[in-house]
Amino acid sequence: MGLPFEGIRVLEMTIFQQGTYPGVMLADLGADVIKIEGPESPDPGRELLNFADTDYNAYFHALNRGKRAICLDLKQESAREAFYKLVETADVFVSNLRLGALERLKVDYPVLSQINPRLIYGRASGYGPAGPDAGLGSMDILGQSRGGIMSVTGPPEGPPRSAGADIADHTGALTMAFGLTTALLHRERTGEGQEVDASLLGGQLCIQTHNITYSWWSGKVPPRRPRLPSATWNSYEASDGKWFSIGMNRQMYWPPICRVLERPEWLTDERFESLESRLEHADELYDELQSIFLRKTRGEWIQIFAEADLLATPINDYHDLAEDVQVKENYINYVERPDGGEPLPMVALPVIFGKTPGWVHGMAPEFGQHTEEVLLEAGFEWDEIAALREEGAIGARV
Amino acid sequence: MGLPFEGIRVLEMTIFQQGTYPGVMLADLGADVIKIEGPESPDPGRELLNFADTDYNAYFHALNRGKRAICLDLKQESAREAFYKLVETADVFVSNLRLGALERLKVDYPVLSQINPRLIYGRASGYGPAGPDAGLGSMDILGQSRGGIMSVTGPPEGPPRSAGADIADHTGALTMAFGLTTALLHRERTGEGQEVDASLLGGQLCIQTHNITYSWWSGKVPPRRPRLPSATWNSYEASDGKWFSIGMNRQMYWPPICRVLERPEWLTDERFESLESRLEHADELYDELQSIFLRKTRGEWIQIFAEADLLATPINDYHDLAEDVQVKENYINYVERPDGGEPLPMVALPVIFGKTPGWVHGMAPEFGQHTEEVLLEAGFEWDEIAALREEGAIGARV
Repeated sequence: MGLPFEGIRVLEMTIFQQGTYPGVMLADLGADVIKIEGPESPDPGRELLNFADTDYNAYFHALNRGKRAICLDLKQESAREAFYKLVETADVFVSNLRLGALERLKVDYPVLSQINPRLIYGRASGYGPAGPDAGLGSMDILGQSRGGIMSVTGPPEGPPRSAGADIADHTGALTMAFGLTTALLHRERTGEGQEVDASLLGGQLCIQTHNITYSWWSGKVPPRRPRLPSATWNSYEASDGKWFSIGMNRQMYWPPICRVLERPEWLTDERFESLESRLEHADELYDELQSIFLRKTRGEWIQIFAEADLLATPINDYHDLAEDVQVKENYINYVERPDGGEPLPMVALPVIFGKTPGWVHGMAPEFGQHTEEVLLEAGFEWDEIAALREEGAIGARV
Repeated sequence: MGLPFEGIRVLEMTIFQQGTYPGVMLADLGADVIKIEGPESPDPGRELLNFADTDYNAYFHALNRGKRAICLDLKQESAREAFYKLVETADVFVSNLRLGALERLKVDYPVLSQINPRLIYGRASGYGPAGPDAGLGSMDILGQSRGGIMSVTGPPEGPPRSAGADIADHTGALTMAFGLTTALLHRERTGEGQEVDASLLGGQLCIQTHNITYSWWSGKVPPRRPRLPSATWNSYEASDGKWFSIGMNRQMYWPPICRVLERPEWLTDERFESLESRLEHADELYDELQSIFLRKTRGEWIQIFAEADLLATPINDYHDLAEDVQVKENYINYVERPDGGEPLPMVALPVIFGKTPGWVHGMAPEFGQHTEEVLLEAGFEWDEIAALREEGAIGARV
């Protein structure tokens, strides 16, 4: 056996991001991930407007690479029976549909666990499995809103802002991937299948866990700030207009900082000598540092800090990322294009395994591309498949 | 067997967040997590200045709850031998120390895998295991900088901003938790141990995966924006000064939005009739919506949208979170205080398992609290422990 999820079969009824990305992680690591779409309900991610101007839709491929796709109209009983047959031998089912929709389609946990008690049933939800809003739909911006991070992001004078990317969806995807894997490990050890919920809300709380816990214990509600509260944990502009950050609050870094910036007098300056005093005089120190940093280019500063074993790094934009040696050495996979053009770069798996490294197994599937293949594998005969197609239970997109 | 990680022993040499939080997730789910600190190198998270004004340090407890702690001075051979004895029966080792420090302490993968080939060896790194910066230290703000998210967060007129919480550390922690669990699953199936790297950089790329992939395919570099580009995926102020967000770009939501806002004429208004036209006229639509939303309270709007099965939710601050019914029903655990006071609320595990739900097993350990207990379990005799203590190889903090 090569990869960690080899031989593991995942059935997905997912759209957009939170539900789809766990399947990417498992597919990169060897799982057979089968995406199920209805003839009237393809994943809308296939055609998102703001990703429509390239040869291939980067959004859909990034979130569905390496999967297979089948079309089943679960509103029809014959298609539902075919789906149940797939469930019999599946290891994982994962969905980010609402609870009500899963029940209407008769693919909720009570139904599927009767067919296959060993099944791991993952539900990527908005607000968790309990409480009055357990069945509500959600979206990334709603997760970032309700989960509290918008209340602390952006300058105080403006409105609350979301982070510049869909971090609620992706955090929810990561917690779901952890949940599915944990449940598989538990099943491997005990034989027991179960239901797993990972929500946008839970993910947002998780990534702020100590700040929220501190707020609950202290009674203090953190404000949005005009700038980060520490000058040695902050961002600066260099002489070439490029930005970089330093992250060196610990006292051990202060003497070498004073040395490389040629400010030995700061070591005995009572405004700056301890972290406490530097926090008190953060604005003064920020201004001092910013004026020094404007004297050399970003590259020069990064080099100076690196040589002194100090912690500084560029603020990359998305173009810089493609040129960053650490990204190139660790986190880019190239994928073959169907039209035979130059292979395309994709963001690789964020986890690197010494013996079982994952990789991008291919582009995302076309709608319904593997319907017949998957049904044949499941034991259907050609004439049964033809009958299903005739009924409109499988196949073409409406 | 109750919980998924029951019987799994994790040895941690971690500080701050990225390395510590995976152990929290595993401890909540039944693992025996043993945190190892040196007499001269306690986790600085025990005493972070900005979390020092409550009875208990919320930062340290949130990131180390439910673990045991031992003190071993790995610079001394007798302590290192004791540590190697623990490694023999451990399942997982995880650290966020730099590669160089791990090598100097003789706890790098080549050494530990010789002692225990089944060991899963997790390294929470800054920039991944390959490339010239594989050994560099990092911090949350540096992960957010180098990983690209700061280039798209905050208004365009100001400097690039980080998200309002330590999302790089926590994303790195989530990918590490997934990596460790995946490696445990692989070991359960094949017997093979291995090394696992999850970095701040990789985590940041992951949570922006489709946006970065799109940028690489299109050649376009996304700018920071004064506001989100869609009016139906945005944040608004209500009459009581409270903010909420809506996330309804899909065309299916537009007719009911027009209905509940009593703007039937928008259905045939060519500025707003399709998502494409709404994006073109986003500023006009935003202003229209903002002026309508100022006419009722946030609570009224949330109610109106909920009744129409539409997607809207409050922007919570950290105090609101404690009062949010979904948080209360799903994501708060109470933990006993050592002094017998009222139990304290903590942010619970973000993943909810139907049959094996995790919970907070207790506060974080005192420094060196379990040194003797753990060594006794490992087969040490009391006189051996006394000898180690005499040499200063275990025990008290310097």
